[in-house]
Amino acid sequence: MKVSKELEIVWHDVTVTSQNRNKLLNQIPFILWFTGLSASGKSTLANIVEKKLFQMSYKTYLLDGDNVRHGLNKDLGFNEESRIENIRRIGEVSKLFLDSGIIVLTAFISPFKSDRDLARSLVEEGQFIEVFIDASLETCEKRDPKGMYIKARNGEISNFTGISSPYESPENPEIHIINNKISLDDASNKIVEYLITKKYINKKGE
Amino acid sequence: MKVSKELEIVWHDVTVTSQNRNKLLNQIPFILWFTGLSASGKSTLANIVEKKLFQMSYKTYLLDGDNVRHGLNKDLGFNEESRIENIRRIGEVSKLFLDSGIIVLTAFISPFKSDRDLARSLVEEGQFIEVFIDASLETCEKRDPKGMYIKARNGEISNFTGISSPYESPENPEIHIINNKISLDDASNKIVEYLITKKYINKKGE
Repeated sequence: MKVSKELEIVWHDVTVTSQNRNKLLNQIPFILWFTGLSASGKSTLANIVEKKLFQMSYKTYLLDGDNVRHGLNKDLGFNEESRIENIRRIGEVSKLFLDSGIIVLTAFISPFKSDRDLARSLVEEGQFIEVFIDASLETCEKRDPKGMYIKARNGEISNFTGISSPYESPENPEIHIINNKISLDDASNKIVEYLITKKYINKKGE
Repeated sequence: MKVSKELEIVWHDVTVTSQNRNKLLNQIPFILWFTGLSASGKSTLANIVEKKLFQMSYKTYLLDGDNVRHGLNKDLGFNEESRIENIRRIGEVSKLFLDSGIIVLTAFISPFKSDRDLARSLVEEGQFIEVFIDASLETCEKRDPKGMYIKARNGEISNFTGISSPYESPENPEIHIINNKISLDDASNKIVEYLITKKYINKKGE
């Protein structure tokens, strides 16, 4: 019993807290949660915003299909249950990154409001910033950089958002980007300006 | 086609790489993977090492039962399949943190060699440092801070490592801590010395 009590005391004394980490990293982290149709420009825009934050010395990490679908979530398919679990895990991993002090950007279709709301509910009020990339299905289908929409139309892919599975638009996203009315550069500036105005970051990154 | 090509080009130009992040964070990250029986002192020691690294200005994050089992892996039970999936996800999340530039410490029993080897295989040679906390079952059972061993002996918990499920000791761990022969402080110093000797970190944290 003596040993376990000692262990208990030591443990509490030495824990590095999330406040400690924020101070060391010189920032207060948040999640920028990009949502929108496939080919709406989520990943592109998230990358541009990440680059701008990086240039301001903010420490960030971008979760997207490339690093999540081939790793952590490679056991998941694309049926409804798997897509819910996909977003749940991304929300939980985002929370871990937030706790580590890192600013997280996520770029996933995340079509269901309930899943986005679950991710939001995992963190504190104000730490979750929903960025709706609002592009029409027509625009996305014209782009179709990976030929996914064609395959979905041909029935080669099932449960494809916008074609055979719904996309539930955010009702009150913190940031609303109307894709065909704004350039990528202006859109990324709008997001950075939001972060500055709301005091998530400051201009000099300090 | 024009739009998608533009998107492609922009994307490649703006990606923040793991090298960029390492430079900004001023460190080259690695994983300290603690393994050992329940109550062997993994979490305690991992916390002490994290604190020492923090004091040297290294940016770290500790994954343990507290932040993983109640979040990302709360859908998993304790049967063999779930325990394998538990460690797989922890390995994948560690890889994401490594990519973000953060030094990761993990403190899980991780009893099966194949699971630890899988986690190791996800990252580059040298990025995975296995720390074996070698405590006898007798010692751990005497400590039993959460009364888990008693419950396991009484059959209230099944598949409990050391009692009703095997622990496969690492054959060639990078660091081997023989728990009853060394104080917590000496053990943590041994780990930090290893990191310095092998040039994972340097003394002043710069």
